[in-house]
Amino acid sequence: MPDKNQIQDWFKELQNNICLQLEKEDGKARFHEDIWQREEGGGGISRVITNGNVFEKGGVNFSAVHGAMPDNILAALKLPKADFFATGISIVIHPKNPWVPIIHMNLRYFEMSNGRNWFGGGIDLTPHYIIEEDARHFHHSLKEMCDKHNSRYYPDFKKQADDYFFIKHRNETRGIGGIFFDRQEGSESEKLAFFEFVKDTGLLFAPLYCSIVNKNKNREYTEQEKQWQLIRRGRYVEFNLVYDKGTKFGLDTNGRIESILMSLPPFVEWQYNFQPDPHSIEQTTLSLLKKDISWI
Amino acid sequence: MPDKNQIQDWFKELQNNICLQLEKEDGKARFHEDIWQREEGGGGISRVITNGNVFEKGGVNFSAVHGAMPDNILAALKLPKADFFATGISIVIHPKNPWVPIIHMNLRYFEMSNGRNWFGGGIDLTPHYIIEEDARHFHHSLKEMCDKHNSRYYPDFKKQADDYFFIKHRNETRGIGGIFFDRQEGSESEKLAFFEFVKDTGLLFAPLYCSIVNKNKNREYTEQEKQWQLIRRGRYVEFNLVYDKGTKFGLDTNGRIESILMSLPPFVEWQYNFQPDPHSIEQTTLSLLKKDISWI
Repeated sequence: MPDKNQIQDWFKELQNNICLQLEKEDGKARFHEDIWQREEGGGGISRVITNGNVFEKGGVNFSAVHGAMPDNILAALKLPKADFFATGISIVIHPKNPWVPIIHMNLRYFEMSNGRNWFGGGIDLTPHYIIEEDARHFHHSLKEMCDKHNSRYYPDFKKQADDYFFIKHRNETRGIGGIFFDRQEGSESEKLAFFEFVKDTGLLFAPLYCSIVNKNKNREYTEQEKQWQLIRRGRYVEFNLVYDKGTKFGLDTNGRIESILMSLPPFVEWQYNFQPDPHSIEQTTLSLLKKDISWI
Repeated sequence: MPDKNQIQDWFKELQNNICLQLEKEDGKARFHEDIWQREEGGGGISRVITNGNVFEKGGVNFSAVHGAMPDNILAALKLPKADFFATGISIVIHPKNPWVPIIHMNLRYFEMSNGRNWFGGGIDLTPHYIIEEDARHFHHSLKEMCDKHNSRYYPDFKKQADDYFFIKHRNETRGIGGIFFDRQEGSESEKLAFFEFVKDTGLLFAPLYCSIVNKNKNREYTEQEKQWQLIRRGRYVEFNLVYDKGTKFGLDTNGRIESILMSLPPFVEWQYNFQPDPHSIEQTTLSLLKKDISWI
């Protein structure tokens, strides 16, 4: 206990809960739902919001898939043939207003027929413009939630987020990080405790993001600020297509492409050698896209 | 003979030659030049054209770099420590008008301190809308040029292009292909002959592309056609960031990022689950993005 059906049901319920809160915050657009089946076993529910008052494009995806582990994954992990079950929720939201950050959350549970199982996931924030007060609020809220479970979680998982959400070829972080954890494996009682932590993470997502959205969604912005947003979105694309393990896993295992790539932003710009003015707010944001900044 | 300096000089001269022809075709914009040095040895000349009458963003990059082979490449190729020299020209052009195709050419020469050396490269065309007459003209011109050297070249290299410029996760080719060849290694006389083939490929590029540009650059287009272009450019980004070996090599070896990623389009759009009307010209193009179509 908890068994995979309970975990799956909980993620599905979380999807409903988050979509309702985001729709309320947007005030105009509604999520469009696609239910899909995976040929090899299982399926998912993709929900996408577009052209809202606040959200330009966002996806909240639930899936529960099972079957034989793909050969290329087995080879990479040096494992004998096995079946797997994986369920999770994956979210990326691209707001219209450049002063509102992009957010990402993924929570997942993985189980193999050899008896091993683990949780993984995280939440990270990608502001186009870093507002230090919001960055502190974001990290503080994550730390507070983590500390209720284990005082090691926030420092460990914050560091993992800094290391993971890093665009090596740009030598910059994707955003201000957050928490990231992979393969949390343990005894039955540890699993139960970790599921409670995963639940609290999932439940924190919408109120925390909406508080930051709400504070900035009506802020006026210039064309230049909108352009900077499109350029920063380009970095998001670079991270997702070059480094993101979830995207790579999906593409390698013949996943549902539209659900995997719903994380890509609606409009993006790449300018050759774009360099912000050294004294600009854009440059200030760049200077904060570094690992190991303490926001607490 | 030819030695690496002659090859390098020839590529540099080709860069001048191509830029002049493209500027003439554009009629307004000029290439902007950046000369860069590589810390570990060598450097390059990047030339970028933006906001032209015809070309929205294009790069014509020359480089000649040398030094120790990076450890990760040596490990992948299972080779002992060695030095390398690499020179080449790399071009991607994104036109403004959706009826004008994107084009790409890469020609490169690689030499290792263990005495091995080879040529590689190719030209391929990525129309947003496939105009069959232009596709046939493109392939026919490549075949004619290839046939002067070796009657196996066109069929072999056309197949390699189909296999290489393939977006696996979309199950579609990037465009209509062209020719692609990798690691053409041989005796000194074969090397000399292959250099002549590489020269002819390089010299064909600008007149061939300009003939297709010229035919379509003044064609009227709708907002819907422009949007389709932005969506197709998204596929171009997916190919370059997920599959392209040149991009991957550049990112892995700490190359000059702005030169590597100058291939990315200026504006791009990703719509969730975009499906063209089954009877539309967009659908006709999709139906032709398949391997092994004979355009001759």
